[in-house]
Amino acid sequence: MPAGLDDPIFALATPLAASALAVLRVSGRGSLPLLEPLLEGRPPLASARGHTARRAVIVDGGERVDEVLVTVYRAPRSYTGEDGAEVTCHGSLPVIRRIVGLLGRSGFRGAGPGEFTRRAFLNGRIDLTRAEAVNEIVRARTDRARALALQRLSGAVERTVARARELLLDLQASIEVALDYPDEDHGASIDGDRLAQAEQVLASLAATWRRGRIYQEGVSVAIAGATNAGKSSLFNLLLRQERAIVSEVHGTTRDWLEGSVDIEGIPVRLFDTAGIRETASPIEQEGIRRTEMILGSADLVLYLVDGAVGVCAADERFIAGAPAAPARLLRVWNKVDLPRALPCPGGFLPVSAANGEGVGALERAISLAVLPGTAAAEGEPLIDSERQRDLLARALAALGRFRDGRAAGLPLDVLAVELREALDSLGEVTGEVTTAEVLERMFAAFCVGK
Amino acid sequence: MPAGLDDPIFALATPLAASALAVLRVSGRGSLPLLEPLLEGRPPLASARGHTARRAVIVDGGERVDEVLVTVYRAPRSYTGEDGAEVTCHGSLPVIRRIVGLLGRSGFRGAGPGEFTRRAFLNGRIDLTRAEAVNEIVRARTDRARALALQRLSGAVERTVARARELLLDLQASIEVALDYPDEDHGASIDGDRLAQAEQVLASLAATWRRGRIYQEGVSVAIAGATNAGKSSLFNLLLRQERAIVSEVHGTTRDWLEGSVDIEGIPVRLFDTAGIRETASPIEQEGIRRTEMILGSADLVLYLVDGAVGVCAADERFIAGAPAAPARLLRVWNKVDLPRALPCPGGFLPVSAANGEGVGALERAISLAVLPGTAAAEGEPLIDSERQRDLLARALAALGRFRDGRAAGLPLDVLAVELREALDSLGEVTGEVTTAEVLERMFAAFCVGK
Repeated sequence: MPAGLDDPIFALATPLAASALAVLRVSGRGSLPLLEPLLEGRPPLASARGHTARRAVIVDGGERVDEVLVTVYRAPRSYTGEDGAEVTCHGSLPVIRRIVGLLGRSGFRGAGPGEFTRRAFLNGRIDLTRAEAVNEIVRARTDRARALALQRLSGAVERTVARARELLLDLQASIEVALDYPDEDHGASIDGDRLAQAEQVLASLAATWRRGRIYQEGVSVAIAGATNAGKSSLFNLLLRQERAIVSEVHGTTRDWLEGSVDIEGIPVRLFDTAGIRETASPIEQEGIRRTEMILGSADLVLYLVDGAVGVCAADERFIAGAPAAPARLLRVWNKVDLPRALPCPGGFLPVSAANGEGVGALERAISLAVLPGTAAAEGEPLIDSERQRDLLARALAALGRFRDGRAAGLPLDVLAVELREALDSLGEVTGEVTTAEVLERMFAAFCVGK
Repeated sequence: MPAGLDDPIFALATPLAASALAVLRVSGRGSLPLLEPLLEGRPPLASARGHTARRAVIVDGGERVDEVLVTVYRAPRSYTGEDGAEVTCHGSLPVIRRIVGLLGRSGFRGAGPGEFTRRAFLNGRIDLTRAEAVNEIVRARTDRARALALQRLSGAVERTVARARELLLDLQASIEVALDYPDEDHGASIDGDRLAQAEQVLASLAATWRRGRIYQEGVSVAIAGATNAGKSSLFNLLLRQERAIVSEVHGTTRDWLEGSVDIEGIPVRLFDTAGIRETASPIEQEGIRRTEMILGSADLVLYLVDGAVGVCAADERFIAGAPAAPARLLRVWNKVDLPRALPCPGGFLPVSAANGEGVGALERAISLAVLPGTAAAEGEPLIDSERQRDLLARALAALGRFRDGRAAGLPLDVLAVELREALDSLGEVTGEVTTAEVLERMFAAFCVGK
């Protein structure tokens, strides 16, 4: 590990808000001897075994700051792989501020984003795919996103990449043998099955990225339609089922509503927009301009038609692509509960925002519309990291060149270069091969305290 | 302990917000066997010693929920005095929600406010003054409030009350001897010194309540004055020193500003109001009405006069008590940095909101104005609890009747009744004598998880 990367660091690991408890983490070489004089407590920390907790009082100068619980961790059996501790204090803002100030003045450095996890990686506790998953699980917004991140945290991506790597290493070994004994027959030295298998594993994993990203980052869905189509009822219905928080966003002239909702495990920002209608009033026009802006940037638009009225001219214009053409559109036939409702035409989803009829099918249709590609097999990981996606693409490109070169009859030593590049890219995915710069960029996205 | 008061409970002890870590607490009879099947981890919890931490995976049905750290506590050496554990999971909202849901379905009951601390009291781990201090330290907003709460948490109130109680128990013992041997001389059976000492200790402690309350709960201070007196500059200066968050509160016609600031350890809500001036405009009048409302409810008003202009007629009317008469007023002579500033008259505090001159003295004057009574001696506790204040008052009233009765020559058995009432009240302060109802009311003010 480079010098200076194991200096004693600290961070608040829980939110800065009043609550029952708060946890501060310290880690690094000498962190326990530095903590010792800040604690009033019987047996010295130096004699504490790892994974043991003790009561203590934090003291600053002669002053008692708080009664705390200190859990000691010993290298290498700790999160970071270093000696360290967790200090559980009262979740009191002045207590937290005092302890943070005290640690900062006592030889500890405030940790940067993701610095604890970075040390866990540098000390060989976890590979880079698990390190990225730590941040992904903290930032997950739906239970599905949590499950996918936990799968990666438990090493599913690491294992999948290792499987492909094993296949390619076998291939590399046989090529090396062939290069060492150039006189023998090399027809069989490249096992096409192994190559195809490795490509298959890596291509499947890379293809999960867009789905993985959507479960983690979410999508925006806007509800549009004529003024009386029932947009707000549908908006409320979709939100109510999830007890979401609705926030009213005040525009200059018109308001729109925005809420967060979990639709089939996908975090969805849902927008209720002002009705589309033609008008000469500049105020109305401003409202329409805002609506168009939201519709233009939404990942999906639900276009509601009042089923008791049927498709009007404005609906037709909107659906045909005017005034704004959204990338994706689901047409919804609302008010099917009304006796006077017209039969739902083909291409529309029948719903009743009033009694919830058809809403399950609508949610399913939303998730199908926003999730690209096919689902991964049960138990197979989805990836969320752009870094991983790019490296997998690089590995696949090298394997493609390997395959083409082999078909073109290129010499083995030329093919071996492509194979090495593919293996290097896979090494970067898990972090066996990496640079300080890559780590810097990766951990910058983390929260402090992780 | 009443039946059912040691059933297994759980609570989230950290804020419900995304962060590195979150902590869930469980406690109660059978809590560890209930937790066991929810964990995937090598050595069974049953064999875990107290104050030890272990890695585990939380599982719900067959599904893995999160990788966690479980710290086991064993009765009686735990916060509550019961068997229990702290589960440290990733600070991820879906993780927290899943674990909360899982515990709720697995035989644990969601803890009520303060239920962990209540159990600590019922199991004899802490007395009631310390129990109240747990809530007080969590809710403290300044470092001074934290220090005062910690002093109480460390037993300073308990010890002070015990001191008075010892004196009264001695007195009671000598009265009982006198009642047992009615023929002897009882002139010396009442030690007037002991009584006076006990009264002194209790009266001093009771007298700290208003100060203690102000350090804990804070005060509101409004800045008033004519339009150009420099109110906003002073407001910003007082806030800037504390890097406080300023929020703009939009009224219908006028805005005022509000900020939180620590002035000599007192949490202060500071208001900057619209200028006072007479006008016929209904909009201005609405602004003035709001200003008067704020000034009328503030604990202290800083009335600013432009020192370069001097006291104008509107200033004189305000200071004389019109239009609204604030309970407390500090007169401030601003702009003393200007060469054309008039000399600061008596009864005014000279300051320069422009360069900070005199602001230290102003802050001192604010704290003196809002803190009633005299400061407690160094190391003596201040009390914050109304419950404690009321019980101390009851004890003092009983001791007063004891003193009066003794002067009036009432028989010893009548005096003994008053002494018993005083002792009972002190017993209630620390919780030796108490009712379920009192506990109910007390802990209802706590946060969940404490």
